[in-house]
Amino acid sequence: MAITKKLKPIKISQKHLLGIQDLSISDVKLILQEAKKFIKLNKSRNKKTNILRGKTQINLFFEPSTRTQSSFELAGKRLGADVMSMNITNSAIKKGETLIDTAMTLNAMHPDLIVIRHQDSGASNLLSQKVNCSVINAGDGRREHPTQALLDALTIIERKKKIEGLRIGICGDILHSRVARSNIYLLNMLGAEVNIIAPTNLMPENIERFGVNKFSDMKKGLKDCDIVMMLRLQNERMSSSFLSSNREYYEYYGLTPDKLNYAKSDALIMHPGPMNRGIEIDTNLADDINKSVIKEQVELGVAVRMACLKIFCK
Amino acid sequence: MAITKKLKPIKISQKHLLGIQDLSISDVKLILQEAKKFIKLNKSRNKKTNILRGKTQINLFFEPSTRTQSSFELAGKRLGADVMSMNITNSAIKKGETLIDTAMTLNAMHPDLIVIRHQDSGASNLLSQKVNCSVINAGDGRREHPTQALLDALTIIERKKKIEGLRIGICGDILHSRVARSNIYLLNMLGAEVNIIAPTNLMPENIERFGVNKFSDMKKGLKDCDIVMMLRLQNERMSSSFLSSNREYYEYYGLTPDKLNYAKSDALIMHPGPMNRGIEIDTNLADDINKSVIKEQVELGVAVRMACLKIFCK
Amino acid sequence: MAITKKLKPIKISQKHLLGIQDLSISDVKLILQEAKKFIKLNKSRNKKTNILRGKTQINLFFEPSTRTQSSFELAGKRLGADVMSMNITNSAIKKGETLIDTAMTLNAMHPDLIVIRHQDSGASNLLSQKVNCSVINAGDGRREHPTQALLDALTIIERKKKIEGLRIGICGDILHSRVARSNIYLLNMLGAEVNIIAPTNLMPENIERFGVNKFSDMKKGLKDCDIVMMLRLQNERMSSSFLSSNREYYEYYGLTPDKLNYAKSDALIMHPGPMNRGIEIDTNLADDINKSVIKEQVELGVAVRMACLKIFCK
Repeated sequence: MAITKKLKPIKISQKHLLGIQDLSISDVKLILQEAKKFIKLNKSRNKKTNILRGKTQINLFFEPSTRTQSSFELAGKRLGADVMSMNITNSAIKKGETLIDTAMTLNAMHPDLIVIRHQDSGASNLLSQKVNCSVINAGDGRREHPTQALLDALTIIERKKKIEGLRIGICGDILHSRVARSNIYLLNMLGAEVNIIAPTNLMPENIERFGVNKFSDMKKGLKDCDIVMMLRLQNERMSSSFLSSNREYYEYYGLTPDKLNYAKSDALIMHPGPMNRGIEIDTNLADDINKSVIKEQVELGVAVRMACLKIFCK
Repeated sequence: MAITKKLKPIKISQKHLLGIQDLSISDVKLILQEAKKFIKLNKSRNKKTNILRGKTQINLFFEPSTRTQSSFELAGKRLGADVMSMNITNSAIKKGETLIDTAMTLNAMHPDLIVIRHQDSGASNLLSQKVNCSVINAGDGRREHPTQALLDALTIIERKKKIEGLRIGICGDILHSRVARSNIYLLNMLGAEVNIIAPTNLMPENIERFGVNKFSDMKKGLKDCDIVMMLRLQNERMSSSFLSSNREYYEYYGLTPDKLNYAKSDALIMHPGPMNRGIEIDTNLADDINKSVIKEQVELGVAVRMACLKIFCK
Repeated sequence: MAITKKLKPIKISQKHLLGIQDLSISDVKLILQEAKKFIKLNKSRNKKTNILRGKTQINLFFEPSTRTQSSFELAGKRLGADVMSMNITNSAIKKGETLIDTAMTLNAMHPDLIVIRHQDSGASNLLSQKVNCSVINAGDGRREHPTQALLDALTIIERKKKIEGLRIGICGDILHSRVARSNIYLLNMLGAEVNIIAPTNLMPENIERFGVNKFSDMKKGLKDCDIVMMLRLQNERMSSSFLSSNREYYEYYGLTPDKLNYAKSDALIMHPGPMNRGIEIDTNLADDINKSVIKEQVELGVAVRMACLKIFCK
């Protein structure tokens, strides 16, 4: 850190934040360093800055979202940007306009940043090819959710002071999860050992090629983990045939005190939210302030998004 | 007033504004005094202040609302706060997240104020136990709608110069009305004589214990009233069996010139809106600028909400 | 232009912007001159001004809209106004409140500007009679959409340096189109020759009384045109009986390279959006940067709306 303070951080290598896959390790460090500064600001009495005053940020959400959209909206407003949030299900898409036409329309209004969430994998990449401003991917289909992985990394670093060498278990519906995908890339890059735990029908094929360990037995997968990262069971993305029942899922893949015992005694519990209490996680564990850092994830999420908006806004 | 000017007003006794029931008389006076200052500001050419600059206000509306949500949004913006309005029917609640999880998520983003409207009585109290910031109740089920009662009181004071000793008739669907409940508490506290007028099946049991007079005959209830406060017939909260027809309701409990004659000749008409014209109120009376102060209620509503946001924001 | 620079521009003759029909030619020139200044601002790094700081702008949209609502929202924010956007389908209209009661409620909150879009022709006029602030019509039924016509005029002037003497073809669903109506008024006023092209059942009766030429054959109507203005096929406003099929429509009234050949070789293509690609316009023509100025229309739309908000805000 002494060295990074002397050397001015390398400028971000990307124009857009589309996925962790596109980032270099110095990009990641730059974002996390910047984010740390905003943690304190967000706790202070005056949370308003002029950093992005005069800039226009458009939040383009094709899927409903409470936490991510709120997080980006507050991040932009606290930086002083003009923020316009568009819930696209309520608008001209009804008239049959395509993503591309919507993008080009908004682009012509000269935004500086577009934050997009879309149900299709690759939607943010497509958008980035059609607009002049920076695009921040807030989740595209099953592909990536880079700011989630970045805030998860920041949460781990704040608590464990490092990521390198930690054993991190990611458990649940890996197949449909952009959160899992972005976290696998990022945690690997930062030197963690990643255990992937899922029932066979929710485990992507050839997941090992990403350099992770694969488990279908949760107890084995959680063995000696420093971090237990639970995923949301994406009921809305699955046909019912995947799982015989929520109850059975909870028995085998829900995080319970019993299963958590296999992880390290100081293991931390993470969840990107929103939680299905009693399905993928025991409700008391979710609220256990000694083990769960779920609220901290949300808190640091605003800081990470402020950093991303600041860095990627030209 | 000379005395209150010398003595610095006592600080508000509450952290949250959950209901009139929790307020002391000096709390109420503090809010109304502060609100008076904002009446003038809202009529001026430059309505923007920096009083809440750097603060974050979240409007969390689980029920649709035009006037209350707009009123709080404009109030916050004119005070310089960053305001984020969330219509929660369009968001993660669809994914099965509970009120508490939503609250804790938003809380982690360090808002300074959460304004909540919710269909369940007690929702704002529950929220206030889970968050660090101040909670303002913008209506919870049948329980309370404190800013409505405060703006009603301010409207009466502006016109009648006092509340003490006035006879005030509240007429309509008392059973389902949070507006009635908050007004009964506040008007009693401020020394008015309150007449409650409703058909038997829309009259709460034991309403007399709140120190009000009870009437099922509107003409008797309005006798010599200084203020006639009509309530909205809450069609959406009632099963159709309560009333044989809107027409019958209008005949017995709709405010008509005929019935208004029983009140004092200078009686003022109030309504919290939105009105069902021709059901609970004659459309010409609603618009009679010599008798109706319905528009003034909306106007002073913004001022009262500005006062509440300022006072309750720490 | 030298003269207009010396003479201080005449103040706007109207309180509201309800339709092109109400504007004088000097009103139009004043708006377009003002708009030109904002084109540059919108391309600059700092797009924020304090021109409307302290003012309240309410966007009251009864019909969903991406581009128009966004355009007005960004315009207001960049001018420094407090902007509140209301999608009225999500709010108290569900409770049965009328347009007038909504208007009077909002009016009591002392906005400086209300921007309204409504499905009924004349809604903005009705609103303007009930409120104290300025009303900007963002589209009312089939009647007018004045800012669209103004931005179209500005786009033509930017490219062709004039409007007078140009031959302009407007083609498509004239019957249901407020865009056509406003453009006919404005282009006539500015001295263009206007050709109206539509199938018989989408052509209003007696359209000639507006001083336009009427064609049912697109090739004849486009002959030697400088500007080809395509309209959106308003599927949502039509019963299916008007047209035998989209395919047939495209054959006779869709803009194709083939038909465009009848216009001048340097003819520009315009469309108010959102486009039905492959129905009223060939998708490649829509994107042809040498011929299509569709994106420029959107871009100049923000500038025109900034000018209108500034000029009409008292």
